[in-house]
Amino acid sequence: MPMAGRDATHDPALRSWVASANAPGADFPIQNLPIGIFDRPGEAARGGIAIGDAVLDLRAAREAGLIAGEAAEAACAPTLNRLMAIGRQASAALRRQVSALLAVGASAQTLADRILVPMPQARMRLPAAVANFSDFMASYDHCARLGVRRDPKNPLPQAFRQLPVAYHSRASSVRVSGEAVARPNGQWQRQDGTMHFGPTEALDYELELAVWIAGENALGTPVPMARAPDRIFGYGLLNDWSARDIQRWEMPPLGPFLAKSLSTSVSPWIITSEALAPFEVPPPVQDPPALPYLDSPWNRSHGALAIRMKAAILTPRMRADGAAPATLTDAQFAGMYWTAAQMVAHHASNGCNLLPGDLLGSGTVSGPEDTGRACLAEIGLTGPVALPNGETRRWLQDGDEVIFTARAEAPGAVPIGFGECRAVIAPAPAWPTE
Amino acid sequence: MPMAGRDATHDPALRSWVASANAPGADFPIQNLPIGIFDRPGEAARGGIAIGDAVLDLRAAREAGLIAGEAAEAACAPTLNRLMAIGRQASAALRRQVSALLAVGASAQTLADRILVPMPQARMRLPAAVANFSDFMASYDHCARLGVRRDPKNPLPQAFRQLPVAYHSRASSVRVSGEAVARPNGQWQRQDGTMHFGPTEALDYELELAVWIAGENALGTPVPMARAPDRIFGYGLLNDWSARDIQRWEMPPLGPFLAKSLSTSVSPWIITSEALAPFEVPPPVQDPPALPYLDSPWNRSHGALAIRMKAAILTPRMRADGAAPATLTDAQFAGMYWTAAQMVAHHASNGCNLLPGDLLGSGTVSGPEDTGRACLAEIGLTGPVALPNGETRRWLQDGDEVIFTARAEAPGAVPIGFGECRAVIAPAPAWPTE
Repeated sequence: MPMAGRDATHDPALRSWVASANAPGADFPIQNLPIGIFDRPGEAARGGIAIGDAVLDLRAAREAGLIAGEAAEAACAPTLNRLMAIGRQASAALRRQVSALLAVGASAQTLADRILVPMPQARMRLPAAVANFSDFMASYDHCARLGVRRDPKNPLPQAFRQLPVAYHSRASSVRVSGEAVARPNGQWQRQDGTMHFGPTEALDYELELAVWIAGENALGTPVPMARAPDRIFGYGLLNDWSARDIQRWEMPPLGPFLAKSLSTSVSPWIITSEALAPFEVPPPVQDPPALPYLDSPWNRSHGALAIRMKAAILTPRMRADGAAPATLTDAQFAGMYWTAAQMVAHHASNGCNLLPGDLLGSGTVSGPEDTGRACLAEIGLTGPVALPNGETRRWLQDGDEVIFTARAEAPGAVPIGFGECRAVIAPAPAWPTE
Repeated sequence: MPMAGRDATHDPALRSWVASANAPGADFPIQNLPIGIFDRPGEAARGGIAIGDAVLDLRAAREAGLIAGEAAEAACAPTLNRLMAIGRQASAALRRQVSALLAVGASAQTLADRILVPMPQARMRLPAAVANFSDFMASYDHCARLGVRRDPKNPLPQAFRQLPVAYHSRASSVRVSGEAVARPNGQWQRQDGTMHFGPTEALDYELELAVWIAGENALGTPVPMARAPDRIFGYGLLNDWSARDIQRWEMPPLGPFLAKSLSTSVSPWIITSEALAPFEVPPPVQDPPALPYLDSPWNRSHGALAIRMKAAILTPRMRADGAAPATLTDAQFAGMYWTAAQMVAHHASNGCNLLPGDLLGSGTVSGPEDTGRACLAEIGLTGPVALPNGETRRWLQDGDEVIFTARAEAPGAVPIGFGECRAVIAPAPAWPTE
């Protein structure tokens, strides 16, 4: 059975001696405690936990004797892969230790200068060496909207209601929030039948949730639904950058390739499964019911997560004018047709070995409302989007920055934030001359 | 410009003091010198080079002072990733050193007991930690045969003649020759519309060549055709096991997923690009001509490789009867529509970073003749294959062993072999009860 459930670390009355963590609407209250990897110039990368506007340096906390054990040691490594490998029990124990030391009244406050790093000083790194990256397509509304062009009568992929459709994507090009994304060159056929190779003219974002895998199943050993939740270390934001002109041309029949491998951005903070326990909600009823290998009582009652996700754009003109980013998407993750546990169980159902540091993308988190269209391909179906300053966008332009945010919200729980996943579009590289 | 070309290591008159290497038809004459990773019980894994019926222990050779330098040091590691990282110049230098020490008359012969391991004692390992695995579909005949069922008038994928079609595949489930492959469970829709989940009933092999990547290009930096050949460390055999029932159901529109990630087998010996220099031949003329980013004078004259590839089956009954494996496929790699250099250049054309230890599959190496059908999906188009002992096969059965072999052959050159890539089909695992 899945572990988690609420404990003292979720108590809404709990407050931290890090005052900024207690501000209403803070992304990182003491109930959150997301984990990431950071460094400062000249220092080794190691684990950190976000608290208010600071990062708890896990190496420093361990050296000060404030945390101990296998998880605390693993969290001092330059990636989270080891922590992900030892499993959820150990990382849950680390959460309890950190919650205690950051709570009002803890003696650790006297060591604040030693164990806290102001967030602006911490350079956030990719949280884990991405072992493998698989990207799902779990939103009914995303598929239905885009599939209508292909086949108005059968807009959904044939297997959509029977399994979480997915493809293997590219691990090497996953980058952490903040790194620029170069517009890719690529090939496609123009409307007149002529061939073209050059910078994509249809660069898009896809607002997704990242699912980071804990533990390992041996090749040939499936993961039943009852064990799937424990294989989820945590969640982050993921921008599955897509070049739509390249994609349309290359895709049949083997799926997207260079349209996706140009780069994938992820947020640096991983919101652990433990932190999200108060936000577990029932997923939409599936019709037809899921096959037994994709079904469990827990999944029907707790499989979805109440997370509100947003995408915004900051164009060069907005930046010059000091304007705020303009919201493009406002969607609910809980509306996804397939749950993360179902993705894990399906992925391993053929015996595929899922490794610590594997990354799953949820697929574009689109909802039924017009505001819930979670990529420009969907938004553009009704024409270019009009931005508040009078600019319009059909696709992303050089210099545009796309900014993802998300918050888990549920009655009786302190809301927790995901931080940001953002990246600026850089011009396409000049083609090498030799 | 590509390096390679012939040198003294390719001299057909060259003979080794390892007598078995000089036998006519030997896979591993001194002109070959393929590299792999091996160990013996209780020993650390390290690099070895196949020579006749023995393995040259590169760690022992280095400790004896017979080889030296950066490549020799890198080749003593438990995977070849470091050797792949330092690039072709270094591995070419290693080849020259090893050729000299194994040649007739070399003083190293006096150290034979110290530096040679009899092949049956060497346990071969996966040659590299697979960083990423991308699988191409570069055979015209494979696509044309199977595409006819989908659309008799347009059997080829729309982009087939303009780019080497490919998909990201699964790195974690790549295994070395000899490891059994468990029949995967999976989901598909039966002809009557009912859903089914259970062991695949259509398990297939795909006879492919493996391409192992050397060096690294930074994300955002394409690899032009002129530099693509130097990014190919070497070649091996690859069995892209495929579950056709699962594949047909899950594939639209994102491509194959669980139908392929069940397992992929590769041969332990990597035939280096240097060893294959005498077998470079012009590829088929492309019509229409490749776009400039996929074209180079070298590719037109040297881009293909004269390699004859075979697949055979050994059923449980054949094994019990002491019968020889029955040949299923006999095909020529030189007939592939796209070359390995074009695959590399295309893969990196969007700036995707290719890493040392990345693995590319060529796609099923099918030729125009009936004997050149390189998977059961193609062979079965004319009904189940009849085996010499009276058995038939539409798809693979539990206990069947599939055995790939290949030889590079060209006028004026000593033929070189690839060794074997083989695996037995194991029964599907029982579904976990909790």
